[in-house]
Amino acid sequence: MDTPVCCICKTREAFFFRQYSGERLCKKCFTESIEAKVRSTITRYHMLNFNDHLAIAVSGGKDSLSLLYILAKLKRSRPKTHLTAVTVDEGIKGYRNEALEIASSNCKKLEIPHHIVSFKELYGFTLDEMIFKARKGGQTELTACAYCGVLRRKAINHGARDVKATKIATAHTLDDEVQTVLMNILRGDIARLAKEKPVTSEVHPLFVQKIKPFCEIPEKESALYAYVKKIDFQDTPCPYASGALRNDVRGMINRMEEKHAGTKFTVFKALERLRPALEETAKKEDFKVCAECGEPSALDLCKACELLRHVR
Amino acid sequence: MDTPVCCICKTREAFFFRQYSGERLCKKCFTESIEAKVRSTITRYHMLNFNDHLAIAVSGGKDSLSLLYILAKLKRSRPKTHLTAVTVDEGIKGYRNEALEIASSNCKKLEIPHHIVSFKELYGFTLDEMIFKARKGGQTELTACAYCGVLRRKAINHGARDVKATKIATAHTLDDEVQTVLMNILRGDIARLAKEKPVTSEVHPLFVQKIKPFCEIPEKESALYAYVKKIDFQDTPCPYASGALRNDVRGMINRMEEKHAGTKFTVFKALERLRPALEETAKKEDFKVCAECGEPSALDLCKACELLRHVR
Repeated sequence: MDTPVCCICKTREAFFFRQYSGERLCKKCFTESIEAKVRSTITRYHMLNFNDHLAIAVSGGKDSLSLLYILAKLKRSRPKTHLTAVTVDEGIKGYRNEALEIASSNCKKLEIPHHIVSFKELYGFTLDEMIFKARKGGQTELTACAYCGVLRRKAINHGARDVKATKIATAHTLDDEVQTVLMNILRGDIARLAKEKPVTSEVHPLFVQKIKPFCEIPEKESALYAYVKKIDFQDTPCPYASGALRNDVRGMINRMEEKHAGTKFTVFKALERLRPALEETAKKEDFKVCAECGEPSALDLCKACELLRHVR
Repeated sequence: MDTPVCCICKTREAFFFRQYSGERLCKKCFTESIEAKVRSTITRYHMLNFNDHLAIAVSGGKDSLSLLYILAKLKRSRPKTHLTAVTVDEGIKGYRNEALEIASSNCKKLEIPHHIVSFKELYGFTLDEMIFKARKGGQTELTACAYCGVLRRKAINHGARDVKATKIATAHTLDDEVQTVLMNILRGDIARLAKEKPVTSEVHPLFVQKIKPFCEIPEKESALYAYVKKIDFQDTPCPYASGALRNDVRGMINRMEEKHAGTKFTVFKALERLRPALEETAKKEDFKVCAECGEPSALDLCKACELLRHVR
């Protein structure tokens, strides 16, 4: 049998079969297709103004580093766009240090400034300390991910404001988006379902707007991009990782995608069509000021400060 | 340890723990709670007029027979309500005959007229014959369920019109409803998502309106009702049963329900809140007349007649 040839350049050897489109691609045409897709996502959702200063949330994993590389490349043709990588140091021993080094060395290579925000500085405790204290205090209901999710989001917003960024880019992939849709449905959380979108609505001047340039890139392809581009990324999973529901949902969607290629895009597009209606149904949020930290919050005490009270 | 006591009557022994409500119930209070719930569902969704003639779709399985018993009981206090059981005989050797006998004997016991509609009479072929012919003709894409689903729905509507019923009651449970919600999302089918509801909108005078009095009853409890009431039902699964996607979705929702009791109700209620918006998003259907059978159809040829063309 002949070696299959890339269906785009028709010369180089194909190494990847994209099931949902039927394309066989060589490495070069594959990485170019990812970069083109990200550019078209950015255009379609009006993600970037020519003079934006983007804070890229970089964890050190494959998705965020692939995003960093692609945005660095994009920047070359946009002289007024500024990029800063922002990494949150939650303080997880034996895990985050390695990720920080990897993130830093990638930033250095790409000549992108790197800003680190730490839980310890921001909240007075590392995540390890919080979990230890919470468990000691008898708090068993909340997982580490419950703390980390809320506190990371707040930390990234702080980091973006520190560097005076106009927007935050996160590396949420198509898979993340579709999983979140289903999880929100299983939780009956219509407000969150309405909020999950490629560009967050401007809700408060203190919340830096977020964009998701990878929202149309399957996770598998974002990983493949990192491999092909030989990007050095952290491969170890977080020691606290749990996310039982997300794992269930991921497994189901992946099985479904295997049987019916294109399912992930189908769900993503269905949500797009539904969103205007969802936004009408979901109540508009009214912002108060958190009594503890002074940040905007839907409640008198923001979720982050509420969690920190458990710890103290 | 003491034997747990029913939390309602506080005298009889509890035999069932309803996780989502925290109740421990005896057999009598359990069956009464199911009957009360069905009555409240019927009231809440305005399912019945005092003088309706209800065609109950009875397959011979646990859900439809539990529904038959509960509606028969309800009828005692509604002298102007009429009931007829309608069973579709698809013509599945070694399966449907047993179900027909079971359905008939239950109807006799309850003194409810029993009307049978057969694929053979209606379409000229039994399901067995259709599948044999379709496979012989090289049709491999469509499963038996794809044929049966469409043709059964049409047959039940015919059966209901035969007996001049004003409404059709089906035994879709909370589980069926929630699975269908998720399946429609995975298929990106917003129109169907909007249509899935406890009482179908009146879309065409030739379509008998459908009601789902079990839409708030978990499948487990509908089965338990049949056991406790010692209802004789068919237990064998259909030899054609496939439904890979539904099985995946069922498994995921059941795991989720185990971890977070009440998930099924949560999804059901989220859909309720979303429905007005969904209906706005989904296009209104325009009905034509099917060129083959003369029944109302969204297309020039209705889905049933299209499938039958494959067979002929």
